[in-house]
Amino acid sequence: MAQAIGRKRWAIAEGYIPKWSHGPEPEMKSHESLCILNAADSQANVEITIFFTDRRPAGPFRFKVEPERTKHIRLNELKDPESIPAGVEFSSVVESNVPIVVQHTRLDSRQAENALMTTVAYSE
Amino acid sequence: MAQAIGRKRWAIAEGYIPKWSHGPEPEMKSHESLCILNAADSQANVEITIFFTDRRPAGPFRFKVEPERTKHIRLNELKDPESIPAGVEFSSVVESNVPIVVQHTRLDSRQAENALMTTVAYSE
Amino acid sequence: MAQAIGRKRWAIAEGYIPKWSHGPEPEMKSHESLCILNAADSQANVEITIFFTDRRPAGPFRFKVEPERTKHIRLNELKDPESIPAGVEFSSVVESNVPIVVQHTRLDSRQAENALMTTVAYSE
Amino acid sequence: MAQAIGRKRWAIAEGYIPKWSHGPEPEMKSHESLCILNAADSQANVEITIFFTDRRPAGPFRFKVEPERTKHIRLNELKDPESIPAGVEFSSVVESNVPIVVQHTRLDSRQAENALMTTVAYSE
Repeated sequence: MAQAIGRKRWAIAEGYIPKWSHGPEPEMKSHESLCILNAADSQANVEITIFFTDRRPAGPFRFKVEPERTKHIRLNELKDPESIPAGVEFSSVVESNVPIVVQHTRLDSRQAENALMTTVAYSE
Repeated sequence: MAQAIGRKRWAIAEGYIPKWSHGPEPEMKSHESLCILNAADSQANVEITIFFTDRRPAGPFRFKVEPERTKHIRLNELKDPESIPAGVEFSSVVESNVPIVVQHTRLDSRQAENALMTTVAYSE
Repeated sequence: MAQAIGRKRWAIAEGYIPKWSHGPEPEMKSHESLCILNAADSQANVEITIFFTDRRPAGPFRFKVEPERTKHIRLNELKDPESIPAGVEFSSVVESNVPIVVQHTRLDSRQAENALMTTVAYSE
Repeated sequence: MAQAIGRKRWAIAEGYIPKWSHGPEPEMKSHESLCILNAADSQANVEITIFFTDRRPAGPFRFKVEPERTKHIRLNELKDPESIPAGVEFSSVVESNVPIVVQHTRLDSRQAENALMTTVAYSE
């Protein structure tokens, strides 16, 4: 049943990690996620590069996604090679050695009630 | 007027069934939907496969969508061959024998006020 | 400067008109919108067909979008040839004689605070 | 590492600047953003044209996006050659001399709790 689906290069122009949260953690903690599906039968080696408004790009941040598995990466938890500061605008480029599918989601819980948004990333 | 529109393979990288709800059911119950349009004049035989972070994929979950009809599938109500647990991250692949259009929507009513998100799925 | 952009056939798999609203009208009235951009220098003749889960499609609903103009159509205000009932799931297909761009947006104000969602429609 | 990704023409059919805001500024001020990623190693010269329902288009609004940088443009802050009025429906076309990626996001804080929506723009 395993069959690759997707593309090898993806971009998300909008990125922002809210500065604070409201409500029970970890479910309600404000976060910025890249959700990656690897439906193929071989491992995906994924590299994320983060672009800013006024400094050089950060990364690459490296991840492995096992065959026929999904990985939800919270950009607010990245540590290596550096952290992404909260309250700063950025963009992301995701590259993989095998086809993957990437979706971008933000949970913003800065106020009492959550706001939620999502979009399939741009691919080529 | 019936004329097929869409593709035969779709993927939604982001999936998550909220663990609880708030407000009157069924309208306000937290749910994760795949909305499928079959605008063609023949039946669509649809198979959904669910991918997880740490176990083998589930499915296929099988559905029929009649000609010139739409079907909104709530992933939190799937039963056969198994249920999708709440509070767990997953991805979906949707395959059909005729062209269809797939959109992903979540209503998250874990807090007093709803959060809503949607995106057209990735197709190829 | 006028230059056509877009496609002639679009589909939105997810459609739903909330049954009630909360807050000052018309801004806060629950609505389901199709936003159509006609950037070309000739008029767009647009036809919308609505697909349901258990009955024949409704429409076509006909609109004109002037050259270099945009039109935001609230599906909850359609009257001719019929109205779309609230609380019912549907899908939409939009067809035009010239290239257009279609985006789908819902404002759901059933609870005290609004929920908002949007996606570019599927095109081919 | 710098490698162009994206397209040169983008369109966002849905545009609307909420008339008022609620909560601490600038984070919680209602806004309509176009987020632009220029991953290439040369400057992007970007022109935005705004289309209305009942008047001639406004613009072009001109921006530069430096190589390997991102720019989040708040449409509610545009001044030159004119401002976009709040409470009015519009569409946007974005053109660039090098490939870019464009995403559309709105924060609507007219009520006590925020509503948030996003979508990758239409490209060709």
